[in-house]
Amino acid sequence: MTERRIYYEDTDAGGVVYYANYLRYLEQGRTEFLRARGLSVRVLHEQGYLIPVMRLEIDYLVPAVLDDLIRVDTTVQEITGSTCTLDQQVVRVSDGEMLVDANRVGSGQLLECGKAVQKAIATSSCVRFPERCSHPF
Amino acid sequence: MTERRIYYEDTDAGGVVYYANYLRYLEQGRTEFLRARGLSVRVLHEQGYLIPVMRLEIDYLVPAVLDDLIRVDTTVQEITGSTCTLDQQVVRVSDGEMLVDANRVGSGQLLECGKAVQKAIATSSCVRFPERCSHPF
Amino acid sequence: MTERRIYYEDTDAGGVVYYANYLRYLEQGRTEFLRARGLSVRVLHEQGYLIPVMRLEIDYLVPAVLDDLIRVDTTVQEITGSTCTLDQQVVRVSDGEMLVDANRVGSGQLLECGKAVQKAIATSSCVRFPERCSHPF
Amino acid sequence: MTERRIYYEDTDAGGVVYYANYLRYLEQGRTEFLRARGLSVRVLHEQGYLIPVMRLEIDYLVPAVLDDLIRVDTTVQEITGSTCTLDQQVVRVSDGEMLVDANRVGSGQLLECGKAVQKAIATSSCVRFPERCSHPF
Repeated sequence: MTERRIYYEDTDAGGVVYYANYLRYLEQGRTEFLRARGLSVRVLHEQGYLIPVMRLEIDYLVPAVLDDLIRVDTTVQEITGSTCTLDQQVVRVSDGEMLVDANRVGSGQLLECGKAVQKAIATSSCVRFPERCSHPF
Repeated sequence: MTERRIYYEDTDAGGVVYYANYLRYLEQGRTEFLRARGLSVRVLHEQGYLIPVMRLEIDYLVPAVLDDLIRVDTTVQEITGSTCTLDQQVVRVSDGEMLVDANRVGSGQLLECGKAVQKAIATSSCVRFPERCSHPF
Repeated sequence: MTERRIYYEDTDAGGVVYYANYLRYLEQGRTEFLRARGLSVRVLHEQGYLIPVMRLEIDYLVPAVLDDLIRVDTTVQEITGSTCTLDQQVVRVSDGEMLVDANRVGSGQLLECGKAVQKAIATSSCVRFPERCSHPF
Repeated sequence: MTERRIYYEDTDAGGVVYYANYLRYLEQGRTEFLRARGLSVRVLHEQGYLIPVMRLEIDYLVPAVLDDLIRVDTTVQEITGSTCTLDQQVVRVSDGEMLVDANRVGSGQLLECGKAVQKAIATSSCVRFPERCSHPF
């Protein structure tokens, strides 16, 4: 579910995907990354937790075009006490070409919620999100 | 402030404005329509009120293109106890050409909040939004 | 591939899916509807053909929320010489609840390209798109 | 025309502006930056020229919320033979608070079109775009 088809909605009059839309795909990638580790953004949302992006560096290498099937690859680059930096690439499925390289996505304060979540992100082990966090993030 | 410029973000690979985006302009038109009558969507939002659209009929007549300046015209068509039907047109400013005619936008339950608001919508007179509604909408 | 997950990108400050975004899902539904019948929007696009929406009637029944999995169902309602009217519903996958009913999407001039395409749409049989249409649509 | 109002379309279920949408405002800022210097993106588009973004670094400082009026400030940071790096800030108009700092937007190959355009960007003097560029960008 980290694959996504490019429709007209994604493109602009330049004939390629509009540059802001890659950030939508990156969000999808992060959401599915969390889901695979037992974290639901819906549960987080219902408990009042957000995962704000603090900083983003993004290189646009090759544009995606109409009807492309793309995939978002997400890996953890660094975890500190209050931030989580992810490596994310948007890849064209047909030939594996890297389209976008978002090499330092800092998602702020993601990990203040406890060791369980931090461990889930860090080790990719699957955990249940704690029912209630002592410190909102 | 019901005018709006068309940027790349608004267009798609067909070279014209993507069809869903006109609904964004219609929302802008409604928001400014309400603002001109003393109703702030932000205040409404902070008080927990939403103005859901229940039904929309939209005719796409002429496409807007990159760098067009458009305007949204909004008028009240009908008001009942629980709904408000608006006429909205998206017009190209340069020559007045009608691009989109959304002739029956039903905004549900908008007017349950009291006579003051209802009167404001109906008569286009400027009123202050009541501090607290007895019936949320 | 007519299923789609709801992410933050789809929602608005009202806590539900922004009303214009359902039109993006309807486009996805039409695209996959055509693909299943051997018609690629990319091929159409590269040959300079667009499929404009002329008119849309949409009823908003139940809002989709964050992390919902939705599905778009598309059926042909009527075909005339120059238009194709589709019935489309956005459905919540978990319980089959209908969220949006777009009951008369008129896609203009879709069928001027020849009997092969018309038959494909009408009968849902799978055909190859003709290499070159004599009349653009 | 580099000011912009925040509507529901801009926000997400987190109650603030969705992070990808700031890139739409940055595009608006660039477009108006060029317009003020005699460059029309529509003319560029009709002549087949695009201004791709190659790299973006963006810091999210303070979120914009519903009904905020924002402004995009754009200045040139560096110009090389084939790239133009812009400083762009998204500012809340009411109090001048900086919301987003996009400090290195590289717009690739913008300036290959000739000295007139390059000078326009560099000096902020107003020039007419040359009728036809010898080297597309």
